[in-house]
Amino acid sequence: MAGKTALIVYAHQSPSSFNAAAKDAAVQTLTAQGYKVLVSDLYTMKFQPSATAADIKGDLKDPEHFVYNDEACAAWKEGRLSDDIKEEHNKLLEADLVIFQFPMYWFSVPGIMKGWIDRVLTQGFAFSLQNMYDNGIFKDKKALLSFTTGGPESMYLPDGINGDINIMLYPLQSGVLHFCGFQVLAPQIFWSVAHTPPDARKALLQAWQTRLKGIMEEQPLSFAPTELFDLTFQGGFRLRPEVKEARAVQPYGLTPGHHLGKRLPPDNQTKPAPRD
Amino acid sequence: MAGKTALIVYAHQSPSSFNAAAKDAAVQTLTAQGYKVLVSDLYTMKFQPSATAADIKGDLKDPEHFVYNDEACAAWKEGRLSDDIKEEHNKLLEADLVIFQFPMYWFSVPGIMKGWIDRVLTQGFAFSLQNMYDNGIFKDKKALLSFTTGGPESMYLPDGINGDINIMLYPLQSGVLHFCGFQVLAPQIFWSVAHTPPDARKALLQAWQTRLKGIMEEQPLSFAPTELFDLTFQGGFRLRPEVKEARAVQPYGLTPGHHLGKRLPPDNQTKPAPRD
Ligand SMILES: Cc1cc2nc3c(=O)[nH]c(=O)nc-3n(C[C@H](O)[C@H](O)[C@H](O)COP(=O)(O)OP(=O)(O)OC[C@H]3O[C@@H](n4cnc5c(N)ncnc54)[C@H](O)[C@@H]3O)c2cc1C
Ligand SMILES: Cc1cc2nc3c(=O)[nH]c(=O)nc-3n(C[C@H](O)[C@H](O)[C@H](O)COP(=O)(O)OP(=O)(O)OC[C@H]3O[C@@H](n4cnc5c(N)ncnc54)[C@H](O)[C@@H]3O)c2cc1C
Repeated sequence: MAGKTALIVYAHQSPSSFNAAAKDAAVQTLTAQGYKVLVSDLYTMKFQPSATAADIKGDLKDPEHFVYNDEACAAWKEGRLSDDIKEEHNKLLEADLVIFQFPMYWFSVPGIMKGWIDRVLTQGFAFSLQNMYDNGIFKDKKALLSFTTGGPESMYLPDGINGDINIMLYPLQSGVLHFCGFQVLAPQIFWSVAHTPPDARKALLQAWQTRLKGIMEEQPLSFAPTELFDLTFQGGFRLRPEVKEARAVQPYGLTPGHHLGKRLPPDNQTKPAPRD
Repeated sequence: MAGKTALIVYAHQSPSSFNAAAKDAAVQTLTAQGYKVLVSDLYTMKFQPSATAADIKGDLKDPEHFVYNDEACAAWKEGRLSDDIKEEHNKLLEADLVIFQFPMYWFSVPGIMKGWIDRVLTQGFAFSLQNMYDNGIFKDKKALLSFTTGGPESMYLPDGINGDINIMLYPLQSGVLHFCGFQVLAPQIFWSVAHTPPDARKALLQAWQTRLKGIMEEQPLSFAPTELFDLTFQGGFRLRPEVKEARAVQPYGLTPGHHLGKRLPPDNQTKPAPRD
């Protein structure tokens, strides 16, 4: 993958953690494949997770009534964002592949990584109402969540106590990544690593490295195609009536799974994505 | 509500924002109703959102391999958590009602509030494997999400471009609040406040105040009852086989909506919650 750049946004406090090992494995494999690899090691960088006026240099547009997205969008246009945000922007611009490596905290990313999402995916830079989902700004980039859990996989099955992991990941995979246009690759989930025997853990890391070798050829998850929606305020950004009608005859019409992002079965990886 | 305490965890940078107005309206109404009201104003407190070793006083159990949940749980037992976490714990212990007031950031809470969730809902203090969901530690407390959005409601309908708001809220309502045992009240959603005319905004705040007057009498959202699951590692924390069989005959068996938390229709508010 000569000429390709990967960005790993990494959130773990400890260099001896499994997350660190997963990050190191990715750096090593991707580098060996010829990628340029950038790492944002959020705790080491002491990355600041709160979206505040400190993110904007110079005068605020409206100091009496601080509206973060308006101020940040204006500052981005005028080159007045804080240096730490600018640096992350530059990494993102360069990246062909973005890997978020983290331990699951409360069924989502850790606070420090949520802060990265809030502050770095600036309106205008990462999305606009005209440029979202399939029309998103990062549509030529790929991204995936790579994370560890405390609980075993069985807790995250549709009949498990926590419910379906795909629903759990929906705000991140659809709402953050796909929203910005990323081609979302299947999540890499390391289940319950602390309760996995050391040999099995090594095998998990090897499987991750094997996957990474072919990752740019993977078929992304399939989401509801954006063109099915009426992207106007009058249309309410809802399914076009004719699409809705066509789907109403299917059992359950639009299932809640409609938007969740689907992993294609392996033998389907080369066929075009089915549309729900 | 003499003798009752409400805690408002509030995350907005600006005292002239709609979120500030919603928070102030709640403080005013609840105080007038006789509640003691506590506010955690996260930006003003400069609340630190990253879970780090600074949260633990004294020696770490394993400084070579920092495991946040283990260290924080041990520190909680031994009274060695940082003062800011202890203060939030004391507020939570006292609270009968917890309101999270925030602008939706990336289909979830802002990073600063995610940090509050990560750091304050300490293992042992807020949950354990024995005490979760219906058996959760906070089962005598009520909690709800009260938030504003940028997008209109139509974007968050099941056929809207962003998909069903109830699925979006699932990691927070089921995974955070219900997991800790809270009785989760229906979310208070202020849709697209910046694009709502001033008079309509005032009416929204009044409706919120009216709701708050009777909030402790509301029927909580209904989740899949914890007793249906086999809460052992051998059982995988999955639905008990006999329950699964009984449900398999229903169309779609377990729907993805199984866990989502349901709002009962108004005329049902006094009847027991239907179980999916
Ligand atoms: C605030 C908070 C919220 C949480 N919320 C959730 C939640 O919602 N859901 C959930 O399921 N869990 C949750 N957890 C648990 C958390 O997800 C796990 O603790 C975490 O995913 C474990 O990953 P780790 O990298 O920290 O593991 P570690 O404990 O660092 O590593 C696990 C094991 O791997 C070993 N290891 C390290 N390097 C290697 C290597 N190269 N080869 C082989 N072995 C290696 C380590 O020595 C260790 O024995 C939460 C934890 C916290 C602190
Ligand atoms: C990082 C980031 C991520 C975001 N992600 C999302 C997302 O995922 N989904 C989404 O839908 N949106 C998203 N947004 C938009 C965000 O949710 C909205 O900007 C926010 O909810 C608006 O609430 P506010 O309190 O900031 O509004 P404000 O702009 O502060 O207030 C709206 C209006 O209400 C007025 N007002 C204040 N007080 C009163 C009062 N007492 N009576 C009447 N009017 C009053 C204000 O003057 C203003 O005109 C995001 C924004 C950011 C910065």
